[in-house]
Amino acid sequence: MILEVLELLGVGVFAISGALVAGRKRLDLLGVVVIAAVTAIGGGTTRDLLLDRHPVFWIADPIYLYIILGSAAAAILYTRRFRPPERLLLVADALGLALFTISGAQIAEESGLSGIAVVLMGTLTGAAGGVIRDILTTEIPMILRRGQIYATAAIAGAVVYLLLQGAGVDRAAAALLGMSVVVSLRFVAIVWRITLPVFVLGDSDRDAE
Amino acid sequence: MILEVLELLGVGVFAISGALVAGRKRLDLLGVVVIAAVTAIGGGTTRDLLLDRHPVFWIADPIYLYIILGSAAAAILYTRRFRPPERLLLVADALGLALFTISGAQIAEESGLSGIAVVLMGTLTGAAGGVIRDILTTEIPMILRRGQIYATAAIAGAVVYLLLQGAGVDRAAAALLGMSVVVSLRFVAIVWRITLPVFVLGDSDRDAE
Amino acid sequence: MILEVLELLGVGVFAISGALVAGRKRLDLLGVVVIAAVTAIGGGTTRDLLLDRHPVFWIADPIYLYIILGSAAAAILYTRRFRPPERLLLVADALGLALFTISGAQIAEESGLSGIAVVLMGTLTGAAGGVIRDILTTEIPMILRRGQIYATAAIAGAVVYLLLQGAGVDRAAAALLGMSVVVSLRFVAIVWRITLPVFVLGDSDRDAE
Repeated sequence: MILEVLELLGVGVFAISGALVAGRKRLDLLGVVVIAAVTAIGGGTTRDLLLDRHPVFWIADPIYLYIILGSAAAAILYTRRFRPPERLLLVADALGLALFTISGAQIAEESGLSGIAVVLMGTLTGAAGGVIRDILTTEIPMILRRGQIYATAAIAGAVVYLLLQGAGVDRAAAALLGMSVVVSLRFVAIVWRITLPVFVLGDSDRDAE
Repeated sequence: MILEVLELLGVGVFAISGALVAGRKRLDLLGVVVIAAVTAIGGGTTRDLLLDRHPVFWIADPIYLYIILGSAAAAILYTRRFRPPERLLLVADALGLALFTISGAQIAEESGLSGIAVVLMGTLTGAAGGVIRDILTTEIPMILRRGQIYATAAIAGAVVYLLLQGAGVDRAAAALLGMSVVVSLRFVAIVWRITLPVFVLGDSDRDAE
Repeated sequence: MILEVLELLGVGVFAISGALVAGRKRLDLLGVVVIAAVTAIGGGTTRDLLLDRHPVFWIADPIYLYIILGSAAAAILYTRRFRPPERLLLVADALGLALFTISGAQIAEESGLSGIAVVLMGTLTGAAGGVIRDILTTEIPMILRRGQIYATAAIAGAVVYLLLQGAGVDRAAAALLGMSVVVSLRFVAIVWRITLPVFVLGDSDRDAE
């Protein structure tokens, strides 16, 4: 039940984030819808294929596709009239990351995966949709941009979710707190541009090639 | 039966389109074959994985791989002697898009998917091979180039295919008409450079970054 | 048994190669780990999904994920103190390519695939991890760079492996020889910059666009 709500919300916000990125690329209207759809279902589809869950969530229930159509339409209409708030995209993306990371971790948990695999599955589920969106629209994937704490936020959220449950915290509460960690870290990264230590190889002059 | 023929044709034309794109990139000969293969089987493989159809079509029957070898060899030999007609690539790609879009829609239909999921599955099946080809060869995906009406053509073809069947038209006839819609829209887009309304966000100065 | 060892080794060397490539891109530390993980498990995961082998190898046994963590940490620590040997990356990548190509071919063989499908599955298993790594880090995929004999090395190794077995050679010996072919071809290509004939279309002036 809680899982379904997470899933529906995550699909909606990622559809909006996909539509906004596509809008910057001067796609035609249906192209925007396709990018919105792929962004919204990419992470959950990756999760379902890896865990052999069939039918895949959006095939089992077409409501996800209607949510995508509605969200993309809303994003298009809104930005027709109003200047798109610069940060709306980042906020939608952070929420989608949080929702799918924890839903991916929960489903991996229910499939009996080990702790480390639960964390990786959560991260993949959260990040895959945005990565596919960025690759298709030839943006540098957000996961790679400096000072974004992107994969890090997903990993930290999934770890907190697991640790809290290990410490006896209620599952729904642990999920909410895990999501809060993801969103907070992303916001901290965006607002204060705080970064993790960066790993740089010695030959930095290579980059100049 | 009709499905198999569509599939064989689609594999052949996408293999040619993959070999031609790879040829522009100065790959070695076997690299060209790999790109041809991935282009040709990418869409159908995506479809089979999403619908849990195993074995995947080219694993079940190696004839597809022989067709790819033959088509890639033909494309290489032809372009050794003759100047490649500039539009041959676009024609091969349009045919592949039409054939795989409708075959994907038909298989999704047979799996009992809802109408909207049939359209998305057809579009993914048609477009995935070309998208993978473009990503691997670091071209901007054709789905994204302005005035290409690419995803739009696939969506329109799949919708027409479903509507015609709903109106009582024979399935094979509906399939042929759906494919004609895809190919016609692509040709119209290519020849007259007609475009759908483009969705552009207000902050177009961002693009200058 | 031999398969498991190949798999463990392949995961380790691809994790190192992923961490080294990510290190050039100034990712944060956990981002480096994610790229290392995706590089290391990408090929085997592609193979398992295509062959419907569930649970996927790294879900079935978390030891692979611990090997990735350890390899990525070792790569990061080593390059903190010592200048990264320019060729270490290429060597790790060549070994990973060889190990996964043959392990992919072996598993495809055991699944009863035809010879041509065994070769393609081996090539995909070997090359997919590196391709995903290069796409995520926005490098031109190594499979595409001139004079790399990349897909070619994988195809040749898989073919030699099959031919030797056909000639009555012991399976483990055929596997070792197949891997030697892959590594040798990569080294020849890297050291002497020997290339296969390149397939170039006539209109080379297009590239200047």
